[in-house]
Amino acid sequence: MSVAIEPFRAMGIAQLAYELAAAGRDVIHMEFGQPSTGAPVPALAAAHAVIDADPLGYWESAPLKARIARHYRDLYGVTVAPERVVLTCGASPALVLALSCALGPGARVAIARPGYVAYRNTVRALYMQPVEIPCGPEVGYQLTAAALEALEPAPDAVIIASPANPTGTIIARDELAAIAAVCAARRIRIISDEIYHGLSYGAATDSLLAHAPDALIVNSFSKYFSMAGWRLGWLVAPDDLLDAAYARMSNLFLTPPSLSQHAGLAAFDAIPELEGHRDTYARNRELMLAALPRLGLARIAPPDGAFYIWADIGHLTDDSLDFCTRLLRDTGVATAPGVDFDSVDGHRFMRFSFAVGTAQIQDAIARMVPWFADQARNTSRLSTT
Amino acid sequence: MSVAIEPFRAMGIAQLAYELAAAGRDVIHMEFGQPSTGAPVPALAAAHAVIDADPLGYWESAPLKARIARHYRDLYGVTVAPERVVLTCGASPALVLALSCALGPGARVAIARPGYVAYRNTVRALYMQPVEIPCGPEVGYQLTAAALEALEPAPDAVIIASPANPTGTIIARDELAAIAAVCAARRIRIISDEIYHGLSYGAATDSLLAHAPDALIVNSFSKYFSMAGWRLGWLVAPDDLLDAAYARMSNLFLTPPSLSQHAGLAAFDAIPELEGHRDTYARNRELMLAALPRLGLARIAPPDGAFYIWADIGHLTDDSLDFCTRLLRDTGVATAPGVDFDSVDGHRFMRFSFAVGTAQIQDAIARMVPWFADQARNTSRLSTT
Repeated sequence: MSVAIEPFRAMGIAQLAYELAAAGRDVIHMEFGQPSTGAPVPALAAAHAVIDADPLGYWESAPLKARIARHYRDLYGVTVAPERVVLTCGASPALVLALSCALGPGARVAIARPGYVAYRNTVRALYMQPVEIPCGPEVGYQLTAAALEALEPAPDAVIIASPANPTGTIIARDELAAIAAVCAARRIRIISDEIYHGLSYGAATDSLLAHAPDALIVNSFSKYFSMAGWRLGWLVAPDDLLDAAYARMSNLFLTPPSLSQHAGLAAFDAIPELEGHRDTYARNRELMLAALPRLGLARIAPPDGAFYIWADIGHLTDDSLDFCTRLLRDTGVATAPGVDFDSVDGHRFMRFSFAVGTAQIQDAIARMVPWFADQARNTSRLSTT
Repeated sequence: MSVAIEPFRAMGIAQLAYELAAAGRDVIHMEFGQPSTGAPVPALAAAHAVIDADPLGYWESAPLKARIARHYRDLYGVTVAPERVVLTCGASPALVLALSCALGPGARVAIARPGYVAYRNTVRALYMQPVEIPCGPEVGYQLTAAALEALEPAPDAVIIASPANPTGTIIARDELAAIAAVCAARRIRIISDEIYHGLSYGAATDSLLAHAPDALIVNSFSKYFSMAGWRLGWLVAPDDLLDAAYARMSNLFLTPPSLSQHAGLAAFDAIPELEGHRDTYARNRELMLAALPRLGLARIAPPDGAFYIWADIGHLTDDSLDFCTRLLRDTGVATAPGVDFDSVDGHRFMRFSFAVGTAQIQDAIARMVPWFADQARNTSRLSTT
């Protein structure tokens, strides 16, 4: 028998959002962790050209591997040999590859709670053991070197995510270095999910590679490069795991989409366009932060990066799935319930994604302010009667 | 530690083929298991249109799932509810999904030897146990009901492949029914890899679903639909495994490429074009079969389907990797050594793929005839001295 894995509960919200939209309702999609923009112009142009010129067989793009390697040098000042870049069908299979080439069944993998639901589920699907470390607001909902130092016994590996989903919080450079040091001392293998890199609103983040040269790095074209549906990602593997990573890639996955590899290479020429998207998210973030007091939401994680706000709604509900469902039905604003990201405390959290257009953010805020005021009134009435 | 998995040894041949081509040699690629043609015209047109019209986010195409379900009704006369079709990034991840949602670590999975190398490797990567059943020329290198009946203890699952890689052999309808009956009686879960369906040169093949309604079916757009690099496949899962399959899909893989789903749907409107490719393979097959006596190759599997010929070269070599390497260096004809497909007897087999153009097949035969004659002369000289 296979182990039981939980589905994404937010899928129910997404399904309801589609049904409402199909019935004519004006739905604002703040439930998804993806840009609402398409691939950048040079990527689209490359795709058009290649479709007409190439039969698009199984292919692993050497130029793209070289370009990604250069990206590490240019952006982070770290040297990565192109053959260490294993191209994948997105970050999800890159994480499967990272876990399965570094660890075997029974391995203990530390992850932050709250965190991206697929970390816990993928670890369990591979018959490894997730070790959830509760991370509260006092540590920005992030893993710390102290927490990893205190964990007994030491886990076999840890998944670091900075900027994180669902919180958008970033681990400071000093703390990253301290985490790397603890992991080196305790022989904890680091898997760093850097999928939200490029999307930060303060200081730029380091790649874990700058602190832990033997870390496994997961990344993709889905967020900063605005190419979620193109299903292209990569794993940077250390030399000692490279054979294991390639053997698994060629047997379990074969190659990533050829067209996406051509388009992804061209996307590196679209930095101004992509920075424009980031500027939009930055504006949206400011609007949301300014609006949160009017929504009565005071306890939020500092959204340093990504395009999320993780908000404590414990004063309004103890059932975030029901809360987000009612918000969607009443206002047409779709959001993600906290239960997907935190199996213990998620019932009193919700996640807003602000990767939509600015006009939609303004519209969503206008719809949510009176609705949240209603919720607060109803809650206070209930608690006084 | 993770389990060690073998890489494809044919990758070395492919690498050498690219190096020779880059150095100006005229290389004929008969080493790959993929069409040399591109996606059909309606698929290309759909891709062009969608690139300009859709932001291509994460997406699972309901129309494509419905179209594939209809395909089972039209082609095989079996009813498949669209929600039983799980879209994947190709057949490789569909097999991962099939194995991991039906079975856990330690499960025993029967496979034919010779067989597609990724069966054995994927089973091992998931910490299951491949049970290789040697299948010789007397059974067309295929699993039989009798072999599955005789296996003690009964395996937990079996992977059926018809038409098969590397042999192209097809399991006759009666034998499929007998296999299904044995598996039902012995509670062996059937996983049927039907990726070469549509490519047969005699009677059409049944889907295993016609005989075993609870079988898991793996298929893709890579072979018949000529869309290998688009990375689109599917799994048909039985109702009792559907939740497990979707939970794994959403956590381990997320969604398949959006553009490929649009193109794949349009490819169903290209049957005449795709049948034209099949006609080319049929011509190539006739040319190869006619040429085999001139190559001195008498012991071959009957290539009922797919686009492969599996030939016994034991009278010429006991090192198929060296043999194929020398063939490539001397003539520019790239082929696959048997060692990837049969870890016991593969040293004396080779696989020709005839999914290239007919002119290339004629050219390849013209180059190979004198080379094989030389090999035979050298071998006989060595054996008489």
